[in-house]
Amino acid sequence: MANTTLTISSKNYSSWSLRGWLLTRFSGLPFEEIVMPIDDPAARAELLLLSPSILVPCLFHDGIKIWDTLAIAEYLNEVRPKAALLPEDIRARAHCRSICGEMHSGFASLRSALPMNLKAHFPDFKVWARAQSDIDRIVTIWNECLEQYGGPFLFGERTAADAMYAPVVTRFVTYDVKLEPHIAEYGQRIMALPDMQQWITDAQQEADEIDELDVEF
Amino acid sequence: MANTTLTISSKNYSSWSLRGWLLTRFSGLPFEEIVMPIDDPAARAELLLLSPSILVPCLFHDGIKIWDTLAIAEYLNEVRPKAALLPEDIRARAHCRSICGEMHSGFASLRSALPMNLKAHFPDFKVWARAQSDIDRIVTIWNECLEQYGGPFLFGERTAADAMYAPVVTRFVTYDVKLEPHIAEYGQRIMALPDMQQWITDAQQEADEIDELDVEF
Repeated sequence: MANTTLTISSKNYSSWSLRGWLLTRFSGLPFEEIVMPIDDPAARAELLLLSPSILVPCLFHDGIKIWDTLAIAEYLNEVRPKAALLPEDIRARAHCRSICGEMHSGFASLRSALPMNLKAHFPDFKVWARAQSDIDRIVTIWNECLEQYGGPFLFGERTAADAMYAPVVTRFVTYDVKLEPHIAEYGQRIMALPDMQQWITDAQQEADEIDELDVEF
Repeated sequence: MANTTLTISSKNYSSWSLRGWLLTRFSGLPFEEIVMPIDDPAARAELLLLSPSILVPCLFHDGIKIWDTLAIAEYLNEVRPKAALLPEDIRARAHCRSICGEMHSGFASLRSALPMNLKAHFPDFKVWARAQSDIDRIVTIWNECLEQYGGPFLFGERTAADAMYAPVVTRFVTYDVKLEPHIAEYGQRIMALPDMQQWITDAQQEADEIDELDVEF
């Protein structure tokens, strides 16, 4: 087994996999992917419950197993400090962790109403009230960051926050969410990252074994 | 305004408030509580949605605002390193962050079926399958920690993980959840902490302004 592995599930559907994978790519740590088959009950539960699980994403490095997305970010920030996954300034770092935490525990309506689906495109998708509140809050978060730190990424340089919000960027594209120009531009910047491009290409080539993706709550 | 404040909501019902409050108490940082009235729409939303919010818990320290529970834990660990909110060993720290993250983003069934309610006691409460799966997973997490690090707390000494799981301890008492002796003992140890005792006393004296606590999902 390789020294460093990252277990993920579907590249098309699993937003938590994308977060963990981007964080590890951003860190510069070389790793091998372990892709769980999408029909595995545990992988399926992760997708249906729309929350991270102990199985996905899961980083294994130097004999240490880390199975939560934020824990992976903090761990990588410690072992690869030069990658600066968290901002250097204590105030910006607290801000970054606050919005990463918000993404980690919140936005349930957005997750269930607009699940990540990189192969799909739904022009003029109708977003209902609760998911719209989540979208409004996310736009506020991005606006505050881009204004306060001056861009091009949420905290100036690329940080863990961009990885945490990357699946949202793809949802805005998939579900044709209308955005102000500078917010849309931030999204385009994320979509254009070579790591994102590679992930999206892989997702589009992924065999589709999910018949229905009924959300259970 | 005091230099350091922590905004919380109901001491009886708000599990996220309890987590943030315990973390700050464990850190040793002196702070003033700001209690949001329970009929405030934002405080109510935090209780009904069973997730942390940007308003509760919210730590304000040295002009820095931190509004996510895990972000508060990481921040306090940085400014009060001697309080050792995270274990010193990198492997234990990764483990601690993983289970804190699991609590932060998961266990939705437990949260909605057995909401925190310190004033109440429901002997022989019937726990249904999904909440039971959450309970089983939590017992596994505690078992692994107590075995691996030898107790008396999850990572030997008291850490952020004990604060993150403290509301679960109270739910096990409120809903009369049957546990193996050494797991029950861990719970008793948490309940006996002076900080917990103070919180519970405050909760029991709290005026009850909530008519119904209908969970919305």
